[in-house]
Amino acid sequence: MDTVKFVLSEEQMPTSWYNIAADLPAPPPPPLHPGTGQPIGPDDLAPLFPMELIKQEVSTERAIEIPEEVQQVYRQWRPTPLYRARRLEQALGTPAKIYYKYEGVSPAGSHKPNTAIPQAYYNKQAGVKRLATETGAGQWGSSLALAGAMFGLEVVVYMVKVSYGQKPYRRALMETFGAKVIASPSDTTNAGRQILAEHPDSTGSLGIAISEAVEVAAMDANTNYALGSVLNHVLLHQTVIGQEALTQLEMAGDYPDIIVGCTGGGSNFSGIAFPFIGAKLRGERDVRVVAVEPAACPSLTRGTYAYDFGDTGHLTPLVKMHTLGSTFIPPGIHAGGLRYHGMAPLVSHLLDIGQIEANAVQQLDAFAAGVQFARAEGILPAPEANHAVAGAIAEALACKEAGESKTILFNLCGHGHFDMSAYMDYMAGKLQNYDYPAEEIAMALAGLPSVG
Amino acid sequence: MDTVKFVLSEEQMPTSWYNIAADLPAPPPPPLHPGTGQPIGPDDLAPLFPMELIKQEVSTERAIEIPEEVQQVYRQWRPTPLYRARRLEQALGTPAKIYYKYEGVSPAGSHKPNTAIPQAYYNKQAGVKRLATETGAGQWGSSLALAGAMFGLEVVVYMVKVSYGQKPYRRALMETFGAKVIASPSDTTNAGRQILAEHPDSTGSLGIAISEAVEVAAMDANTNYALGSVLNHVLLHQTVIGQEALTQLEMAGDYPDIIVGCTGGGSNFSGIAFPFIGAKLRGERDVRVVAVEPAACPSLTRGTYAYDFGDTGHLTPLVKMHTLGSTFIPPGIHAGGLRYHGMAPLVSHLLDIGQIEANAVQQLDAFAAGVQFARAEGILPAPEANHAVAGAIAEALACKEAGESKTILFNLCGHGHFDMSAYMDYMAGKLQNYDYPAEEIAMALAGLPSVG
Repeated sequence: MDTVKFVLSEEQMPTSWYNIAADLPAPPPPPLHPGTGQPIGPDDLAPLFPMELIKQEVSTERAIEIPEEVQQVYRQWRPTPLYRARRLEQALGTPAKIYYKYEGVSPAGSHKPNTAIPQAYYNKQAGVKRLATETGAGQWGSSLALAGAMFGLEVVVYMVKVSYGQKPYRRALMETFGAKVIASPSDTTNAGRQILAEHPDSTGSLGIAISEAVEVAAMDANTNYALGSVLNHVLLHQTVIGQEALTQLEMAGDYPDIIVGCTGGGSNFSGIAFPFIGAKLRGERDVRVVAVEPAACPSLTRGTYAYDFGDTGHLTPLVKMHTLGSTFIPPGIHAGGLRYHGMAPLVSHLLDIGQIEANAVQQLDAFAAGVQFARAEGILPAPEANHAVAGAIAEALACKEAGESKTILFNLCGHGHFDMSAYMDYMAGKLQNYDYPAEEIAMALAGLPSVG
Repeated sequence: MDTVKFVLSEEQMPTSWYNIAADLPAPPPPPLHPGTGQPIGPDDLAPLFPMELIKQEVSTERAIEIPEEVQQVYRQWRPTPLYRARRLEQALGTPAKIYYKYEGVSPAGSHKPNTAIPQAYYNKQAGVKRLATETGAGQWGSSLALAGAMFGLEVVVYMVKVSYGQKPYRRALMETFGAKVIASPSDTTNAGRQILAEHPDSTGSLGIAISEAVEVAAMDANTNYALGSVLNHVLLHQTVIGQEALTQLEMAGDYPDIIVGCTGGGSNFSGIAFPFIGAKLRGERDVRVVAVEPAACPSLTRGTYAYDFGDTGHLTPLVKMHTLGSTFIPPGIHAGGLRYHGMAPLVSHLLDIGQIEANAVQQLDAFAAGVQFARAEGILPAPEANHAVAGAIAEALACKEAGESKTILFNLCGHGHFDMSAYMDYMAGKLQNYDYPAEEIAMALAGLPSVG
């Protein structure tokens, strides 16, 4: 029998997170205070985050211990399985070996609890009563709602309005876990009211929702802010994915030639790729790493590497990243988790120094790949994950063309059980591709701040 | 650290199904031909099922080998985890130990693929091209759609109309796997047309949908029928659940005093309970076994143990079971998988000989239990599974009352990701309890056939 699933014991679960900052040739450009243009310090972040997370944000230690209380919750679904996609390989007729790490087994159905759990834990330890956050597709919001229920914290979620309408069941999941969900832009914050005054029909964006959640956290001493991607400590928490995959591929006697992940803010991509990129930076093993983003929100492939705000309301520090401009509002594609104008600074830095590549995939191609994957492997991917599936299939077909038996690893970051309306629209022919006109991107980029 | 999850290696997965017929003191009453009133033989079933499944239906061998091809697909998600519900125990303040076996990790989100996969396999082996079936909540239909995709069989699913409307996303999942889905009653069969002529507004029932699927299979030599519950071979396939739980509880150093499962047709209940009831029948270990059914469809607690048709159109053999009468159409409760007028003959037989008990639970109590479970354990149960959760919580509270530290095992047979509209209705106060008036049940039972 050919093994298709590689399972680790609980004892093989990583006990520390991997911090790529330790292996970078030079540190990425620091976040700047928008007023002074100077690098920000811990005090600037203290109103939003507990000190333990701020320390992780700036740490250069290679291994950061995972608290026992966090490991205990992780163990409910971790280690997650690694699969060899033999049926998909057969369907494609490729000599390539395709592996995928499946993060959809978590109680929220995606990789997001990997960081929601420690974020809730550290906030609880710091005496915080409530967390405010934003969510796109709802995967992050439901993960933080779950984490809040586990650690006894109130959670308020600003949900991008287009997703709030498209995904009522994700909202219901958050509410079942006890969270409060508000459609963004809303009239509960200055940032939201300002957007609504200018664009009453705004379908929202992650950038706007971040502004609302940050504002709520900044105004209330008992409330902290939690972010589901982009920041260094969030990417750090996701590295359990790649560390497990390394051990599982050892079991399989393999090492990836190519790693593929989808990118919105960059967290699931970083989670699977950073431990392997670390080995590459340390000169141990080579690997090609491909970030796949939606053509409708192409920060890595069509954005600029520049200092920009993380949110639309300009409440955050300035960070150097690939950005489409903080005023860019992407179309309401179904991969709501990838609708972010910027990119994690660490991912942008790695692209800038040539350690990773980036491709953009159209919505229809992503869904075609997802349906092909579901029929071959039995697992229905989330629309976000479909971008990684499409990227992996493209690499496997390139191997077929070249007659090369390469090893491809991709991150299947979540299941699509809450995204069936997207699949219904796809099967009914209602979805469309989106080529963003160059002048619209140029216009959005023209508004970039002049700092940095 | 207290272990909460008990994981088996693939090598510890059962390689045979457990057949309770081998351990029964006397065989259950045989199915009868409705025309002759005589026990049916293999030839009567041959138009609907492949011979391997017919052999399993009547086998008295204790262990029936699981084909390697089936084991290989099982391994995608099996062995499934067993959890100790420590957070729920704490929330209840009970001295009882609560364990749950979680079948929601399958690609269809429930225990149903345990039988869908072997059914598709044996039909494929027998040269069948297409499978016809019915589905209530959609869990069975999506499992058979998945199995069809795995083994290259066409699948047509008659979906109970009330669920077809309530659960469009389950339908979309089946269609994504490549199946054809038809709302039942439909005008594509004589059975369906007959119902529509009498009740144009019929919301359907499993009994009606079975008639339609059986008719389609009987009329077409290339099409066989597949049933998701009730029959002996279906219950047999589910025993992987209880066999794994036995091994996992050994790892935990425990043995259940009480086993709880929800019952519609009886398959998930049988899957977890039969291996333990077998040990009881063989005089090895005692155990209390509790079947929990919805008060809105109370076949075990308010039905009669008598020969009846398995379907509304009277196309099936007569089977002796606890039944509300084949014309009984239960109200459109959200636990669609439990809306069946009858019960698996093996389960009915076990209740008749005093080996199991049965309770009925109201819809609101089931959802209250489900929400409490979700907030404590992080996993959102399917509405069907909420009945088992409610039953387990009731036993745990009885232990608290009595100050007894008993061990409770229940089957969490599926997740509720496709049932969020039910949770939304519950949280909005739109759901109601349902006490079926005695005269309505008496009226339905008055129509029972006079055979047997």
